[in-house]
Amino acid sequence: MQNDRYQYTYLFEFTKNVFHKMGCSLSDSETIAEVFLAAELRDHASHGMLRIKDYYELWKAGRINVNPDVRIVHESPSTAVIDGDNAVGMVAAKKSMITAIEKAEKAGSGWVATRNSNHFGIAGYYAMMALKHDMIGICLTNANPLVAPTFSTARMMGTNPIAVAIPAKNQPPFVADFATTPVARGKLAVAEKKGEKVAFGFVQDKFGNPSDDPTILKSGGSMLTLGGDRIHGSHKGYCLSAIVDIFSAVFSGANFGPFVPPSVAYLPLLEKKVGEGTGHFFGAMRIDAFQEAEEFKIKMDEWISTFRAAKPSEGQTHVIIPGDPEREAEKRNRKEGIKLVPAIKKDLIEIARDLKIDFE
Amino acid sequence: MQNDRYQYTYLFEFTKNVFHKMGCSLSDSETIAEVFLAAELRDHASHGMLRIKDYYELWKAGRINVNPDVRIVHESPSTAVIDGDNAVGMVAAKKSMITAIEKAEKAGSGWVATRNSNHFGIAGYYAMMALKHDMIGICLTNANPLVAPTFSTARMMGTNPIAVAIPAKNQPPFVADFATTPVARGKLAVAEKKGEKVAFGFVQDKFGNPSDDPTILKSGGSMLTLGGDRIHGSHKGYCLSAIVDIFSAVFSGANFGPFVPPSVAYLPLLEKKVGEGTGHFFGAMRIDAFQEAEEFKIKMDEWISTFRAAKPSEGQTHVIIPGDPEREAEKRNRKEGIKLVPAIKKDLIEIARDLKIDFE
Repeated sequence: MQNDRYQYTYLFEFTKNVFHKMGCSLSDSETIAEVFLAAELRDHASHGMLRIKDYYELWKAGRINVNPDVRIVHESPSTAVIDGDNAVGMVAAKKSMITAIEKAEKAGSGWVATRNSNHFGIAGYYAMMALKHDMIGICLTNANPLVAPTFSTARMMGTNPIAVAIPAKNQPPFVADFATTPVARGKLAVAEKKGEKVAFGFVQDKFGNPSDDPTILKSGGSMLTLGGDRIHGSHKGYCLSAIVDIFSAVFSGANFGPFVPPSVAYLPLLEKKVGEGTGHFFGAMRIDAFQEAEEFKIKMDEWISTFRAAKPSEGQTHVIIPGDPEREAEKRNRKEGIKLVPAIKKDLIEIARDLKIDFE
Repeated sequence: MQNDRYQYTYLFEFTKNVFHKMGCSLSDSETIAEVFLAAELRDHASHGMLRIKDYYELWKAGRINVNPDVRIVHESPSTAVIDGDNAVGMVAAKKSMITAIEKAEKAGSGWVATRNSNHFGIAGYYAMMALKHDMIGICLTNANPLVAPTFSTARMMGTNPIAVAIPAKNQPPFVADFATTPVARGKLAVAEKKGEKVAFGFVQDKFGNPSDDPTILKSGGSMLTLGGDRIHGSHKGYCLSAIVDIFSAVFSGANFGPFVPPSVAYLPLLEKKVGEGTGHFFGAMRIDAFQEAEEFKIKMDEWISTFRAAKPSEGQTHVIIPGDPEREAEKRNRKEGIKLVPAIKKDLIEIARDLKIDFE
């Protein structure tokens, strides 16, 4: 550890210890630490160590189950519904993705909808679990409502991400992991802290007027879907977000849309429930259920190198393949260490003191 | 028929006769007519009767197979790859979706990648085939390259649509069917004919500069992905379009990205091939592979009515559920007839004359 940078293993051990002290099994604690650290490595700090305090507070409030019985409650040869038993999201999600992979081994593809779960970190982690099995991985989740459908001012949907991971041969895998909004919630918080405006197309005020105010969510505003406004295709972003919500929650029996429970303890549970907890959706497809695996991977290499070689716009150097920036970040962060801002460090020191473990 | 409006059955019979005269079987001709007319009914005229001339010219140029052997070439319990044998797209696509549905009946879900196909009309038609089986339907297809990935000026992708249909009980089904670009190719053509500019965010010039010129594709310009520019999330639209391309073409062994063959005869076949024809991807999931069917549908009703009741923005009357506008259009067009513009009428009259069938 140097200055404000921490080695991967130090943060992994710390995170594992936090959850183990909270009562999670050692194996579950490792899963949770792995997903938090995967976010940090991939420069998705908004889903990393920043969130440990939220999970910790939910546990203190008795709103999360550290000894869950995550189980299949319904299944067919290629599908299952899993009840997460109010587990830490990572625990329910990893078991769900393993189930999707096991289904795919036998049936060619496996699809799992999960209810009664919680915030699970980065969707990309679960999609990428498929890669080493020579499978395509998919992961969707709904989330706390912040986003309005086209023509509405009501916060009906989360930033509902989509993650898809596809293996290649000599090229690194294709890994897309993106929210169905133009911008992540965290970017608004950053602009707010800096006292800056944001671009139009990210948020609207409580009447549905365009806004560049990153604090507008505090005065009845809402986030917009990918596309921004109707003329630029916000209705398509709304479709995507709605599909993620329905696959995650209606398929599984979780809460959908505006009824998704808050992932922070300082917001009360909602009065109305339409299902159990937060919902996710996972998919795995064996590549050799479509093409002989070697042939598929060579073709993916060709796809990737073709797109990598596409002519750049003036002023740009190259086209990015989904997954490139995160892989470069991971390499750098493993070597140089993971940077934590003072506010997060302070939170972690407090948690460490509470739980009587080390952190400095 | 009144003025320039035609009854559904008249256009259906005419279209069926055109393809039957071209040598398609009666059953295939009916399939093709049904999909063309579904586009007209749903007010997606850009995929309707307008396209018959393109298909006809492809056939005259010997570039389409009217007696195809559409067949499964690879399969697992829940997946298949179909070779379309260069069929009219609708013929390969319908057989593929039927295969996905049959797989889902046994395995819970069915996923079919199709190669060696052609332009297939509206993706929504195939997704909706699942509804009457109490299944969720999914359909993706790649298409002629017109769209540049983020940071590039090269036309690497089509408008690659995504269609998802989900059944409900008393509410009409949820049917999303949208291109992964802010705007359809056809909208640029309309603006061009009217001599109008388009909004920024739809197209760029050959250097990658923003443009409002709908004719820019003729001077080396390209269409942009959903999101428009990087700051508004064009990289997410690029991810979506890339996923559609890979699922449709790499899974199946079709041509991907810039190598998708033109769907019009006036453009020559490309010199380089990386697979066979155009590619599609189809999915079907039994709703009772996740939830008891009745329960699922009641929950979808609740989802739909919740979103329908979301507070509208100032100046708007209500939130639209995906599929609403098309369903209203279908009702109106079935009653009032389908309107054809003079240029399309003229094309159809010429084809009718060539093939010695009636059209007026």
